[in-house]
Amino acid sequence: MNRDADDAAALPLAVTMGDPAGIGLDITLSAAAADLALPRFVLLADPETVAARCRTLGLSIAIRTVASPAHATGCGRGAIDVMAMPIAATVVAGKPDTRNAAAIIGCIERAVDLVMHGEASAVVTNPIAKFVLTAAGFPHPGHTEFLAELAGRYRPERIWHPVMMLASDDIRVVPLTIHIPIAKVPAALSRDHLMATVRIIAQDLQRILGGRTPRIAVAGLNPHAGENGTIGREEIEMIAPAIAALQAEGLHVTGPHSADTMFHAEARGRYDVAVAMYHDQALIPIKTLAFDTGVNVTLGLPFVRTSPDHGTAFDIAGSGRARATSVVAAMHMAADMARAMAAHA
Amino acid sequence: MNRDADDAAALPLAVTMGDPAGIGLDITLSAAAADLALPRFVLLADPETVAARCRTLGLSIAIRTVASPAHATGCGRGAIDVMAMPIAATVVAGKPDTRNAAAIIGCIERAVDLVMHGEASAVVTNPIAKFVLTAAGFPHPGHTEFLAELAGRYRPERIWHPVMMLASDDIRVVPLTIHIPIAKVPAALSRDHLMATVRIIAQDLQRILGGRTPRIAVAGLNPHAGENGTIGREEIEMIAPAIAALQAEGLHVTGPHSADTMFHAEARGRYDVAVAMYHDQALIPIKTLAFDTGVNVTLGLPFVRTSPDHGTAFDIAGSGRARATSVVAAMHMAADMARAMAAHA
Repeated sequence: MNRDADDAAALPLAVTMGDPAGIGLDITLSAAAADLALPRFVLLADPETVAARCRTLGLSIAIRTVASPAHATGCGRGAIDVMAMPIAATVVAGKPDTRNAAAIIGCIERAVDLVMHGEASAVVTNPIAKFVLTAAGFPHPGHTEFLAELAGRYRPERIWHPVMMLASDDIRVVPLTIHIPIAKVPAALSRDHLMATVRIIAQDLQRILGGRTPRIAVAGLNPHAGENGTIGREEIEMIAPAIAALQAEGLHVTGPHSADTMFHAEARGRYDVAVAMYHDQALIPIKTLAFDTGVNVTLGLPFVRTSPDHGTAFDIAGSGRARATSVVAAMHMAADMARAMAAHA
Repeated sequence: MNRDADDAAALPLAVTMGDPAGIGLDITLSAAAADLALPRFVLLADPETVAARCRTLGLSIAIRTVASPAHATGCGRGAIDVMAMPIAATVVAGKPDTRNAAAIIGCIERAVDLVMHGEASAVVTNPIAKFVLTAAGFPHPGHTEFLAELAGRYRPERIWHPVMMLASDDIRVVPLTIHIPIAKVPAALSRDHLMATVRIIAQDLQRILGGRTPRIAVAGLNPHAGENGTIGREEIEMIAPAIAALQAEGLHVTGPHSADTMFHAEARGRYDVAVAMYHDQALIPIKTLAFDTGVNVTLGLPFVRTSPDHGTAFDIAGSGRARATSVVAAMHMAADMARAMAAHA
């Protein structure tokens, strides 16, 4: 590990509050209250809202307000470091309020600012609700696109193409298409998109894996990966040529694999990441194997970003029913990735 | 358990040889050679081919040729009961021969004849290869359709609609569409097909479950089951109305469920069978969870039929590398189902 890696590992994570009416605060605070060895982090949030949610949840936590991540002394086991962010309206758990949209967005901007200025090691975002932010004029479909825009503010020399990866201890998956109807999936796929995505995965994952060339397994679109063209031709016309071209670039890419036989334990041992053609082809295996511990990782950005793989769950916010497993996994994965990527920058 | 159930449980299974050049004989013979308590069964096959494959595989098995299932004394632990079926050409493992197509088909016909005449409790079929049978004029796409036609020969009072279910200890799944390209899935789905399939599942599964009303969970087609129509409308226009109509018939049907969140352990506890809209939506979860022990079960026939959930694997036939786990699971499941269905006929 070089000096940069030591520095990155020494820096705290920047954790956003997400929508404060959702479960983001619940899970972050219950993680801080539990007897867990969490990576060092600062929570970007309004301290009074944090204190109020602790009372609602019956959590006893020492809330330390810090001026910068450098002042963070360590979260977990009953303590949390909060960097105060202004909020517009008193937060009621379970009742999203568009007046707080600017504060929600502000936390994300501040987290990226901290990581781009070398004050934080990585960004962990708590869930936001699109409809709350859209109502306040937020033009992005979600976190990922906004983070790519923020990356461009600091590093305008290129356009950043974020790639969503879902990761757990068991498996890493990247869906090529996400929230579109199944009927539109075939037309949404392209050789260029597949190749660009695999290149980003290969580059970032190599750093995450400590310099080792990642083994990337690409799924077919159709049953049995099209069975030599008898069950669809996308494999022959698009996926296989893209894989051949990527192999010619020196990348360790295999496929197209039959999606039904690539996710059992033995098959998973043959690759580091699976590239799926559509949402459920990627999400079914990881959520079947690791429902509570899947982490959403954004590749293709100039910084490490993870988030828990679930939404705001307004219906259970403040109830104490939300499980912290995914945000805890997101913090550990962010810290591990930041350390590995700094060591292999 | 009534008298019929005792009778059915007492009867042996009829196990077909499948394509004798494939791994069907390998796995059946290695199961018989192992120290397993298998259900009583007769293997419909050519005894000389059986003996030759035992030599190839280095298996020491007592091969008892029996005239009818009633003479079977029990397979497993080094013994097997074989009902002799004529074969046309000497079998070479790994080299399918269309001259044996008639013998392959004859074994299936004989197995159905035995079960329909009350001489066997259920049919377990070893894998066949479509191209071998098609070359000999076999008009069916696979076992399932042929079995439905055979059912009609014995029970011509109705048309039999077979329904393929994949089952393991962890999960049961039924794909509504199977070997068609993803691009053709949306148009292949219909309210009538979904309803007819669920009714067959409900009827047969109730008997398998010992009379209890089965809980049937139906998946959506699109990501997040369409998210209220924002990611596709098939859920609103087709799936939800079908579910409502089935509920009105008194069936215990829920959904449409988001496919990614319905297959983890806790979610699986809420249903007895999941109905999926397409091949991989059903096959990914079961093969992720139970790659070697999944069993193909045909519902909707007037007899119990199971088969291992894999193909002929000509490339490894005779090598000893084929695993018997799936055919063993298929035998146990067939025997258990025959007993349960006889008790709740």
